[in-house]
Amino acid sequence: MQVEGTHYRTVWMEGSVVRLIDQPLLPHRFQIADLPDHRATAEAIRIMTVRGAGAIGAAAGYAMAQAALEAPDDTFLEYVRTAAETVHATRPTAQDLFYAVEKVLAAAESGGRDAAVAAAQGIADENAAAGQAIGAIGADLLESGMRILTHCNAGWLAFVDWGSALAPVYAAKRRGKDVFVFVDETRPRCQGARLTAWELGCEGVEHAVIADNAAGHYMRTGHVDLLITGTDRIAANGDVANKIGTYEKAVVAHENGIPFYVAAPVSTIDPDCPSGDDIPIEERSQDEVLYMAGRDENGEVSRVRIAPEGAAARNPAFDVTPAKYVKGIITENGIFEPTDITAALKG
Amino acid sequence: MQVEGTHYRTVWMEGSVVRLIDQPLLPHRFQIADLPDHRATAEAIRIMTVRGAGAIGAAAGYAMAQAALEAPDDTFLEYVRTAAETVHATRPTAQDLFYAVEKVLAAAESGGRDAAVAAAQGIADENAAAGQAIGAIGADLLESGMRILTHCNAGWLAFVDWGSALAPVYAAKRRGKDVFVFVDETRPRCQGARLTAWELGCEGVEHAVIADNAAGHYMRTGHVDLLITGTDRIAANGDVANKIGTYEKAVVAHENGIPFYVAAPVSTIDPDCPSGDDIPIEERSQDEVLYMAGRDENGEVSRVRIAPEGAAARNPAFDVTPAKYVKGIITENGIFEPTDITAALKG
Repeated sequence: MQVEGTHYRTVWMEGSVVRLIDQPLLPHRFQIADLPDHRATAEAIRIMTVRGAGAIGAAAGYAMAQAALEAPDDTFLEYVRTAAETVHATRPTAQDLFYAVEKVLAAAESGGRDAAVAAAQGIADENAAAGQAIGAIGADLLESGMRILTHCNAGWLAFVDWGSALAPVYAAKRRGKDVFVFVDETRPRCQGARLTAWELGCEGVEHAVIADNAAGHYMRTGHVDLLITGTDRIAANGDVANKIGTYEKAVVAHENGIPFYVAAPVSTIDPDCPSGDDIPIEERSQDEVLYMAGRDENGEVSRVRIAPEGAAARNPAFDVTPAKYVKGIITENGIFEPTDITAALKG
Repeated sequence: MQVEGTHYRTVWMEGSVVRLIDQPLLPHRFQIADLPDHRATAEAIRIMTVRGAGAIGAAAGYAMAQAALEAPDDTFLEYVRTAAETVHATRPTAQDLFYAVEKVLAAAESGGRDAAVAAAQGIADENAAAGQAIGAIGADLLESGMRILTHCNAGWLAFVDWGSALAPVYAAKRRGKDVFVFVDETRPRCQGARLTAWELGCEGVEHAVIADNAAGHYMRTGHVDLLITGTDRIAANGDVANKIGTYEKAVVAHENGIPFYVAAPVSTIDPDCPSGDDIPIEERSQDEVLYMAGRDENGEVSRVRIAPEGAAARNPAFDVTPAKYVKGIITENGIFEPTDITAALKG
């Protein structure tokens, strides 16, 4: 997608260097991070310099490609397998990450360095193409004047390009359909207020940021026509794990007869995971809740403490939405009922 | 309640000066604001130096008492009636505010200055007594080991003393029952993270602050036994208006079979308001969503901008929870079914 007239992917590789948009600095500063080796890329995933299901997957694939490039000839397989463990351990919930690590590892094992690099590049290209296809398919659901609620950021920053939940909005815009988007700010890390609002602004899509608490009010009072989010992992029974708060929105949408669509490339489906109860939920630092980061009066990105000294917090990063609350899952292979999601893998 | 060993009410009057705890500075600084006349007190209500249903009511009553003290002899009634309009206009949703303004105005009209001051003092004392009674009645619902979810701040800072939603927790604590409280941070103004966490810390009640988005996750996964909040206005049919986000929590609690209790003094009941649809919802400044206030690295209370420049926000301050989601309303006159709430007025 475009940033001030230039096309960027969220993450890409030049030689042996992985380059990616430094997302914690957005929307206040647009800056590219250069990651020289697989450990630096893994760390960037862990500390969320890159975040979002598809972007994490692509970054993980590139990290594995870096590992293949770094690996000594005599301990090649041992080195890349150890790297796979390192990259795998960065984020416990992201299906796309596991998918990418396994795929590039298998390529390295069977075809060596060149195969690993080609596999990583293939994952990134596949992700960008999936986003574009999800956009084209999902845009059929949208009409001019519709009011859409989204949670977190499943836009192009969360993927290599296009995005999942927002791809239909961008595709609809290109077809001349103007929709309005309610953007949940998405505490604690505010990916909605920071990233989704920034993306929508860049693309000229009308929107308003709301406190997460306000979503229910707008749903109950008839101001929302459609709820759409991304997902980090889809279980075989159609349960979806996504950013904390998605479950609440889904329940309230269901209660008010508002359809809830989940958008994701098929790489997000985990056929080996029977249900949402089997998805581990990452608990992140208390500080994400106790503090808030933003641009201060001097224009610097800094943080303020909200809670009293000594207060404790709990910070689950994801929740699970049972399949019964999901109307459909939009993939690059079409729209599927959640309980039939494994059919999407047969594409 | 106690602040570092000294008993404070949230708002009180000394001579013709209204004194109140400056709540936007909490929990980072404990400071008393002195308000010399009714206009200053009205402004403090408007800009939320004082907030919370009962505290607003008491402050509004005192503001009217100040007006009676200020009023020239020859235009006494005109002056206090104009002051009533000024105070009435500060916050559109707060039933306790309307109740206090009418009551002190009527006292001034029939009995002059002394009657107005006595009426205002009576409202504050009545509010503190109601909180204590709500605590005693509500504590019967609690047992040691229970996990309670609360939203916003309906503790003693929201009232003159004791509080509504938190009064049962404090009363239970004094009876030796130890409960755990999940504290919704309550964006956009974070009254949960700032005020409820501070109160619970002062009272030694175990708690954890959570992003509002995490409440549903804890409810779905069996970590919450009871949801309890305050309310700013109760309609005759039992619908309740409360801090934005309450509706979402109520729906998710209902979906998971978790009882939702609302706690409020009977002054919060508006028998002239047929249903929640008749309650106007205050929309506050966009900046409350686009920025976040807290303590910066220099120890000062400052704010950071979260959203990109140019982003728009919507900021409804309250929402309406239909009576069907409410298990019971705890008042100083007992616990009532929401659809039977007007019976509480006969107390």
